[in-house]
Amino acid sequence: MIDFRSDNTAGAEPYVLEALAAVGHGSSASYGDDDVSAALQRRVSEVFEREAFVFPVVSGTAANAIGLSALCPPWGAVVCHESAHIRVNEAAATSMFTGGAALLGLAGQGSRLTTAELAACLDRTAWGDPHVSQPSVLSVTQATEMGAVYALDELTALSSLARSRGMRVHLDGARFANALAALDCAPADLTWRVGVEVLSLGATKNGTMTADAIVTFDAAVADELRYRLKRAGHVASKGRFPAAQLDAYLTDDRWLDSARRANGAMARLTAGLAERGYHPDPAAQANIAFVALPEDVAAAWGEAGVQFYGIEPGVVRLVTSWATTAADVDAALALLSS
Amino acid sequence: MIDFRSDNTAGAEPYVLEALAAVGHGSSASYGDDDVSAALQRRVSEVFEREAFVFPVVSGTAANAIGLSALCPPWGAVVCHESAHIRVNEAAATSMFTGGAALLGLAGQGSRLTTAELAACLDRTAWGDPHVSQPSVLSVTQATEMGAVYALDELTALSSLARSRGMRVHLDGARFANALAALDCAPADLTWRVGVEVLSLGATKNGTMTADAIVTFDAAVADELRYRLKRAGHVASKGRFPAAQLDAYLTDDRWLDSARRANGAMARLTAGLAERGYHPDPAAQANIAFVALPEDVAAAWGEAGVQFYGIEPGVVRLVTSWATTAADVDAALALLSS
Amino acid sequence: MIDFRSDNTAGAEPYVLEALAAVGHGSSASYGDDDVSAALQRRVSEVFEREAFVFPVVSGTAANAIGLSALCPPWGAVVCHESAHIRVNEAAATSMFTGGAALLGLAGQGSRLTTAELAACLDRTAWGDPHVSQPSVLSVTQATEMGAVYALDELTALSSLARSRGMRVHLDGARFANALAALDCAPADLTWRVGVEVLSLGATKNGTMTADAIVTFDAAVADELRYRLKRAGHVASKGRFPAAQLDAYLTDDRWLDSARRANGAMARLTAGLAERGYHPDPAAQANIAFVALPEDVAAAWGEAGVQFYGIEPGVVRLVTSWATTAADVDAALALLSS
Amino acid sequence: MIDFRSDNTAGAEPYVLEALAAVGHGSSASYGDDDVSAALQRRVSEVFEREAFVFPVVSGTAANAIGLSALCPPWGAVVCHESAHIRVNEAAATSMFTGGAALLGLAGQGSRLTTAELAACLDRTAWGDPHVSQPSVLSVTQATEMGAVYALDELTALSSLARSRGMRVHLDGARFANALAALDCAPADLTWRVGVEVLSLGATKNGTMTADAIVTFDAAVADELRYRLKRAGHVASKGRFPAAQLDAYLTDDRWLDSARRANGAMARLTAGLAERGYHPDPAAQANIAFVALPEDVAAAWGEAGVQFYGIEPGVVRLVTSWATTAADVDAALALLSS
Repeated sequence: MIDFRSDNTAGAEPYVLEALAAVGHGSSASYGDDDVSAALQRRVSEVFEREAFVFPVVSGTAANAIGLSALCPPWGAVVCHESAHIRVNEAAATSMFTGGAALLGLAGQGSRLTTAELAACLDRTAWGDPHVSQPSVLSVTQATEMGAVYALDELTALSSLARSRGMRVHLDGARFANALAALDCAPADLTWRVGVEVLSLGATKNGTMTADAIVTFDAAVADELRYRLKRAGHVASKGRFPAAQLDAYLTDDRWLDSARRANGAMARLTAGLAERGYHPDPAAQANIAFVALPEDVAAAWGEAGVQFYGIEPGVVRLVTSWATTAADVDAALALLSS
Repeated sequence: MIDFRSDNTAGAEPYVLEALAAVGHGSSASYGDDDVSAALQRRVSEVFEREAFVFPVVSGTAANAIGLSALCPPWGAVVCHESAHIRVNEAAATSMFTGGAALLGLAGQGSRLTTAELAACLDRTAWGDPHVSQPSVLSVTQATEMGAVYALDELTALSSLARSRGMRVHLDGARFANALAALDCAPADLTWRVGVEVLSLGATKNGTMTADAIVTFDAAVADELRYRLKRAGHVASKGRFPAAQLDAYLTDDRWLDSARRANGAMARLTAGLAERGYHPDPAAQANIAFVALPEDVAAAWGEAGVQFYGIEPGVVRLVTSWATTAADVDAALALLSS
Repeated sequence: MIDFRSDNTAGAEPYVLEALAAVGHGSSASYGDDDVSAALQRRVSEVFEREAFVFPVVSGTAANAIGLSALCPPWGAVVCHESAHIRVNEAAATSMFTGGAALLGLAGQGSRLTTAELAACLDRTAWGDPHVSQPSVLSVTQATEMGAVYALDELTALSSLARSRGMRVHLDGARFANALAALDCAPADLTWRVGVEVLSLGATKNGTMTADAIVTFDAAVADELRYRLKRAGHVASKGRFPAAQLDAYLTDDRWLDSARRANGAMARLTAGLAERGYHPDPAAQANIAFVALPEDVAAAWGEAGVQFYGIEPGVVRLVTSWATTAADVDAALALLSS
Repeated sequence: MIDFRSDNTAGAEPYVLEALAAVGHGSSASYGDDDVSAALQRRVSEVFEREAFVFPVVSGTAANAIGLSALCPPWGAVVCHESAHIRVNEAAATSMFTGGAALLGLAGQGSRLTTAELAACLDRTAWGDPHVSQPSVLSVTQATEMGAVYALDELTALSSLARSRGMRVHLDGARFANALAALDCAPADLTWRVGVEVLSLGATKNGTMTADAIVTFDAAVADELRYRLKRAGHVASKGRFPAAQLDAYLTDDRWLDSARRANGAMARLTAGLAERGYHPDPAAQANIAFVALPEDVAAAWGEAGVQFYGIEPGVVRLVTSWATTAADVDAALALLSS
């Protein structure tokens, strides 16, 4: 079986197990007051080239919803793309953790927000009217749920517009490393340099076991998150174990290597599909693509042993991961041809 | 350094790493739809001798607060001991997840609830009066936060009383295995046979890395928990990893072996302390004890290299774990003598 | 000044003051345990031709959000028209009171939901998938926010479809009396006979001072509402005063008389506008209409002393109330002509 | 029947009906944008001798819980007396509106908080520890639930202590006018001059129909309250009606006159009881008193036609109001003697 269902169906990178083994001995302070957690804090500040605060969590939903709850008042709205994961795949977790904030979806262009549409949304807002949820946070997904990647100047334009209206800026980075790899830029370029204040740093899809993180560059937000995470049950007592996974992930460009492999596998796959006349959405630049594939072709491919999700009749979603090999891709393409 | 600060300062049992390694290969369905998670469900039903539903979570706070939220309406109160972890050490997480329920603490006897006091509380309740939070759940901690263990008939009496008033019954089993080991009874004896409907099954303190669980015997509660956990961000995408930890934990009585070691170390420690004239609270039967120790003695012991928490002047809290050896205990006692 | 801004800009019907004066003497039990409140309960059951439970509240937002919170679990979604007041004008109050439920807006036809679109929505729902807010309540506004009125068989079709999927049915009756008057049917016909379980009974727009109500036909919902309303601060200590307003409102068809006057004024107004070439949305059958009016014409009308809200360039919203007289309408039309 | 059950069993002062009648004519802007509401804002600033912001609400529970929600973060605790209304009689409304904050009750002296006990509470707090709800607001009831009245310097001492630890200060003034009358001081003396930032201004118990209010001296809190009240359903569309009640209440010292009558009636009652050998708690200085009365005496009094609540065997609670006359008191005393 070749698995293109998601990048969370793979296991963990081998270095993760090694990292867990390395820190498991002896006693250490609990709830994140340990040396491994301290090392992770330093690592994150180094990787992002400024003081940063990192909070390991067990899922992207936790990272998104709790990170957003530190930015958005209960009477606020989080503005996002209508296909954003926080809006359609997290069961309104953000509404729960914020105390009832709204999730305001814009149609955008493909899976990406545009400044024109954001501007229109903000212009039609009744600012200061308590009948209306007040736009308080802009949440951008990078890479998007459909594999598109915003250019840096697009992010700057979006965040500048949002911040000019007093909004905060959140980045859902479930596939942050894949975006970094696609743009070949620094983590700082893709976050605080383009106005991002809180980042959901995905790691599980790209190699760890069960360790994602919230990263913020704002000390006041960090203070608040300490409380919000504890009472959400998201502070592991043996904090060294998630910290070790994340520290290993961010060391020696491992996360970028993994993401490059995933993106490369997708590039190979989409090139092969295009050769066979099946053209993916050209916006896809990372490790996920939506491809028009006739229903019978898709069905035959699935029966031949390739796993993927059909999104709607005639369109399939394909995802590669750090674990996808060139051989996997070639085998899948061969199964399609036959 | 000999560490008696808590049972969460130890690392993980060696079998945990092996279990993680064993399941990390190949692709598998995400969000708990994998074979390892299915095996864990079967294991739990077998261990508890009836159909049971298990939900891995990353902390005891998550297990308690989210488990309780499926039992207690927003206008309800959770009745517990005034020293209960849910009331004093979880930052009102239960109030958050229930939508604002109250935590009603009773003084009890030592760290244990008594039926007399529970009865008095229920008798003075204005049932049906919407001005007053309605007692809706009884939450008992077993073993208690001070190491006491309820006898089975005490649990039956408490739960029967609660259920006679329409209340549900929750057990905070952060140290469930230690209680099992102390009572030498079956998991079923300590849960549904004495009226418990939802169990917070602690595992991290007793050997896993970051895997605790909610166990329920009520299918309707289980249905609700699926939604509640997802939107709380407590569903790991690579569900096999927490499931593997818990399945290994419950296999071949490993959890009981670990708990017996912890309890045994504490028995050795308290016996040694008693020989030296320092008598622990006699209620302590598991792996945690509060001991009266003169301040200067405690200070000297700490300086000699034994770690523990002072609870108040003249009283220290000592905790042993699966990792505490007889040699650790003896060395600690020797340091006290000198 | 002639005021077509809203039906909540009028004062109160004269009988309201008389009713308040009539019950203000002597002492009486508080929090709704008084005779006036009991009389209101009987009145509502009589008016709705079956056992009904009524809870006075101070606003339509309270009626909607708290009524819905008794029907929708935190992980649920309330399905409504995209222009529904609960979705766009109540600052996500429903999300707050439900503990974070989603408000799912459908485009509908004009301001009305259609069974076709509701069916499509329910068909594309991933039922049972905890990633997705589960459609749990259908909320219909009658008359709609744009003055349209659903026929009884349309309501039956919508509610039957919803209930076939396990959903509950809520009616936002901010202008319930106007709909009754438009359809010339019984209150029972417009509620439980067409599947409505909880009604937001608007009264303030149609004559009371500050008294709306939740009406339910489900005793279990009523039990829950008693608690939910108390802790939302919506139980007036001197319950006789809101109860007296509502009881007077429902007596001797006063509410219908008031609504007929409002609807009649709007019919006169829209007929006059049509004569002058300005045609309202033909769906408008109650006391609110959206009319295409050139911007310069609207501006001149406003300067001449007629108050109304512009909705978008070229469209104005006009609302009449129980207090609008034929003379007001004629005067307004005269001002438009000149 | 002579009614000493509560001060909310009386009707409304005659001037209230007059005020409602006076503002009921003509159309006016809704949701508080009307002239009557503007006049109330000016009145409140004048009465409190500085810029103040007033928000009418329909109950004391709404005033308390929503006012506190603007001061206390979700992870905070509101510190109050263990008998505080917010803690024992509002069904944890404050926990709901804050998003799960804790209500931390201190034993105090009688029904009053002491600085010694508050200091001890704050000293034992683990500040900054996310396991523990952080004391964030001090809520004082004046007059207390048992009729005691804090001296101004006591309030200053309590609020100074709280504010020295970064806490905000709230006053539950369900019987604020009675306290003012008892102390014969200015409203400013009893609020911002002693450090109070948000006041629940009770009015219903002292003469209005269904109009209490939140008053704050902090513009940022006021901004937040506008949103919080709207989505709680506590913004009446015809804002002139609650505003008119409150404006009339605060005009020409009417509120003080009403409170003086209530307090005077209680003084007459307790003096008469003392003459007969039944001594009330000497702390009672306002319009509520707890009196030790043998059970048979109390029963006979009740049968003779005097209404009151028994608090526990041998103790009754007596409350007078603006409507209680000297004749009522004398008649009640006569019924006791016989």
